[in-house]
Amino acid sequence: MTYSSKQAVEVIVGRLKASNITDVVISPGSRNAPFIQSFTRKQAFNCYSVVDERCAGFFALGMALEKKKPVVLLCTSGSAVLNYYPAIAEAFYQKIPLIVLSADRPEYCIDQGQGQTIRQNGVLDLHIQAHFKIDGDTKDIHQLKKIEQTLAQAFLQFEAGQIQPIHINVHLEEPLYDVVNQFEFNFTEGINSTELKEMNWNPYLDIWNSSKKKLIVVGQQEVDENLTEVLNTLSKRQDVLILTETTSNLDIDLGIGCIDAFLEGISSIKEAFKPDLLIQFGGAIISKKIKALLKSYEIEQVWSFQPDGIHPDIYFSITDKLDYYALSFLELAKCTKEVDSDYQREYTQAFNLVKAKRTAFLAQSSYADIHMYNRILDRLNPNTIIHSSNSSVIRYLQLFSNTGLQFYCNRGTSGIDGSTSTAIGFASQTTSPVCLITGDISFFYDTNGLWNKYIPKHFKIIVMNNSGGDIFRIIPGAKDSEAREDYFSTAHNLRAEGIASTFGLDYYFCDNQKDFEIELDAFNRNENPSILEIIIPKEVGPKSLKDFFNFIHN
Amino acid sequence: MTYSSKQAVEVIVGRLKASNITDVVISPGSRNAPFIQSFTRKQAFNCYSVVDERCAGFFALGMALEKKKPVVLLCTSGSAVLNYYPAIAEAFYQKIPLIVLSADRPEYCIDQGQGQTIRQNGVLDLHIQAHFKIDGDTKDIHQLKKIEQTLAQAFLQFEAGQIQPIHINVHLEEPLYDVVNQFEFNFTEGINSTELKEMNWNPYLDIWNSSKKKLIVVGQQEVDENLTEVLNTLSKRQDVLILTETTSNLDIDLGIGCIDAFLEGISSIKEAFKPDLLIQFGGAIISKKIKALLKSYEIEQVWSFQPDGIHPDIYFSITDKLDYYALSFLELAKCTKEVDSDYQREYTQAFNLVKAKRTAFLAQSSYADIHMYNRILDRLNPNTIIHSSNSSVIRYLQLFSNTGLQFYCNRGTSGIDGSTSTAIGFASQTTSPVCLITGDISFFYDTNGLWNKYIPKHFKIIVMNNSGGDIFRIIPGAKDSEAREDYFSTAHNLRAEGIASTFGLDYYFCDNQKDFEIELDAFNRNENPSILEIIIPKEVGPKSLKDFFNFIHN
Repeated sequence: MTYSSKQAVEVIVGRLKASNITDVVISPGSRNAPFIQSFTRKQAFNCYSVVDERCAGFFALGMALEKKKPVVLLCTSGSAVLNYYPAIAEAFYQKIPLIVLSADRPEYCIDQGQGQTIRQNGVLDLHIQAHFKIDGDTKDIHQLKKIEQTLAQAFLQFEAGQIQPIHINVHLEEPLYDVVNQFEFNFTEGINSTELKEMNWNPYLDIWNSSKKKLIVVGQQEVDENLTEVLNTLSKRQDVLILTETTSNLDIDLGIGCIDAFLEGISSIKEAFKPDLLIQFGGAIISKKIKALLKSYEIEQVWSFQPDGIHPDIYFSITDKLDYYALSFLELAKCTKEVDSDYQREYTQAFNLVKAKRTAFLAQSSYADIHMYNRILDRLNPNTIIHSSNSSVIRYLQLFSNTGLQFYCNRGTSGIDGSTSTAIGFASQTTSPVCLITGDISFFYDTNGLWNKYIPKHFKIIVMNNSGGDIFRIIPGAKDSEAREDYFSTAHNLRAEGIASTFGLDYYFCDNQKDFEIELDAFNRNENPSILEIIIPKEVGPKSLKDFFNFIHN
Repeated sequence: MTYSSKQAVEVIVGRLKASNITDVVISPGSRNAPFIQSFTRKQAFNCYSVVDERCAGFFALGMALEKKKPVVLLCTSGSAVLNYYPAIAEAFYQKIPLIVLSADRPEYCIDQGQGQTIRQNGVLDLHIQAHFKIDGDTKDIHQLKKIEQTLAQAFLQFEAGQIQPIHINVHLEEPLYDVVNQFEFNFTEGINSTELKEMNWNPYLDIWNSSKKKLIVVGQQEVDENLTEVLNTLSKRQDVLILTETTSNLDIDLGIGCIDAFLEGISSIKEAFKPDLLIQFGGAIISKKIKALLKSYEIEQVWSFQPDGIHPDIYFSITDKLDYYALSFLELAKCTKEVDSDYQREYTQAFNLVKAKRTAFLAQSSYADIHMYNRILDRLNPNTIIHSSNSSVIRYLQLFSNTGLQFYCNRGTSGIDGSTSTAIGFASQTTSPVCLITGDISFFYDTNGLWNKYIPKHFKIIVMNNSGGDIFRIIPGAKDSEAREDYFSTAHNLRAEGIASTFGLDYYFCDNQKDFEIELDAFNRNENPSILEIIIPKEVGPKSLKDFFNFIHN
């Protein structure tokens, strides 16, 4: 066994191992060679090589999302680390634990015309929880000990629920490739994470018990069986109304599962809907309609539950920031007595009507986006984990009830920039089938996501290709702008076939209803990574969406 | 004529026009809609639509490089601006004027779970010369006037030679698409840029006249005929030795034009070569050998000429930072009397020998990288402007004398990340033929550079595809590492054909000597944008390069 002659490198790598952080996505370079050699020589680490750092960042994000533990991103000096930034910002807002480990030249080289040297220290500071500047050449045992303890503490933050990214920037002098046969260091053990403090919920239960209209709105989160059970129970009470989104990954018995369609189906909702108590938790909310509606109220009690203490004030109304899991309160609330109320019935009935109308509207097959989403969701393997790109795709998916499929979407920054890489990172860590449904603009933005050796056989992509950003053909203002096709939708005639062949994925194509059913079938049966490209004329989606909303509105 | 209802938007756009900054690269979005509509409605602006902001950044950089004037980058809110960062860092170090105009949500929305909202203010601060935070909704005439004057001053900095990027972040509330019929504003006129101060060069001429060994080392710069003339004259003196790189774009009569080959050809250069006076100017120096050699000396007089006052201390030795063009001093120096010296002769003779050996080595055609670069340079149209990717390509090109072709390479950060986009941006602004010579890793990194509607017919790409990052098969340490192919070279079997077909470029391919000559010929004759992919077995390049150095060394 050999070790890098840089003791600080071995200390950092050893500390990661001791903290059980063992997944490393490596982008090539020379400055980071001591780390590359150290990681790849140790059996403890799962190393992945991804060249394009922008993709590497999102790939690591997808991995961390699936594994629910930190993933390391290792890059060389210079602009490499800047290419991570879109994924880091996404991780920061989606609260996904990434550790950026960037190799750097010695500090005295910065701004002195040396190759691949930029100002790396602090360059990600606005979107991380902590930044560490480390002298990778130190041989001083006290300094090494301090590095190790600082990082041990930082990594522990992840366990304590502080899961935003951190940045470790390591200055390294040449030579970079030297190895030694021995390395001894006592890694700190037995550090404990701080436990969640106890909370007296009685004052909150009092308010809960006196509220006739309790609205629970759940943002983006992963499948949570305990929460599902509690919410199922609560959903049967007339004083509680539960709204979830597709990306909430909850299918609540009497909950309202597709907010946009629901709100469209109800006229003059405004005043009666206003809750006395609003409980919000989870991540991002996609529905613009519910955001606008809840922002318009002055609600007396608005409780935000976020165990990490970071409380986005989505409706600009939070009255109480509670640094706890919502479940810890809701389990107590579940045992309280139902308050006499007629809050829920009207809305669940209205929602049932919306669902019935949706079924009627979709019963007639048509070569239009909304019909195809319906067919795709119907026919995918029921265990499929769906990753969605942003803009119109996720908004279409929001129109369907969540019935067992899992949904993920990068709603931290809601960018079009890394959906494919994220989905592949996720897929690489699970044996369940993963299907990315993506718009054409998102797909072509992140084609380098497919330059990846870890795409599993159970990974598939559906490209909804309507030759441009369809969202701009839908939203008011943009859709009537003269600049629409050139500068908003950015119309194009690109096809995914050449991309599929370049990166070795099977390819299916359709541009009409009959072929759609045939190709979807063949695509579903294919056991290799594959792409189904669905070409849809650009006028079709906006029109049928308008028809759909009119249908349920009337 | 209609205007955005946002007066601040019209003030910014109007100020750009008044400052004669009229090229705008637009990436799609809704938050930036007021700007999109304002720019595209005015005839004064040349608008370009590029979806992938990473590519848009480098595309704008290439444009600004060719036009020698600022180019605006316009993007929406969220992670969009982060994707510009690699290009911004390159522009910062290469000193290219870019103006990032990022639309943002209102400040109170930041960190509150609103879509596409990150911390944009200050996010590029480490690599720009100035950042401006603007309230895009203000209607206050005093505030509008202040915005206009501040920006007028900032844009003037570009004319005064401060050409690093600036960032304008504009907070915008909805509605975003509203227009009005009238907009009146008095734009400030007659602002003057500060003139370069006069300098008394006499003390410097005294030192010049007393130095027997004067070494002039020119970094990266564009073609400069006046400078060429002065250096040609100086190169005939025995007390002056002139070193230039391929990217210096100078072909000096008795200068030494390929530093790496020259230094390899000379044994025991160390002490005699040490100058009394070192004059350095221009941008980046690529040759690691000359950097190592000059760093090893303690030189009494080291003068750096940089008119913008930013002096990278490449050899850690600058004694005098002179905020002037080198030409202003060298024109005076040209008229001084030659000092009795035998500094130059030995080295120019040695260099001639190196050139003769190079000719002999290259005379035998062989299917190896160095031979092919030689043939490519020989056979390209003599007006061709060559863009080079980083790593091995630019190092190979450094081995050839600069004889009329122009060379560009992103040596600000020396990244592998935007060469294709940069070359296309440059090509879009010239009628001269532009050829990008790129390695496979750089090419695949920036394939989205080809997702571009402005690729002219005179743009071509040669991909030197040796199935991975060949530089790691050459540099000591990496080449013997067990991790070499997987994590350093990142070996692959990708081909550019599917990429070419996706983006509509003609495609030529060769993998042997005979086809190489035929395909190169056909490629040169083709009058459409096209790609020539040259497949080279990975062992070939490193071996022949070693043979070449041995040959000229002995």
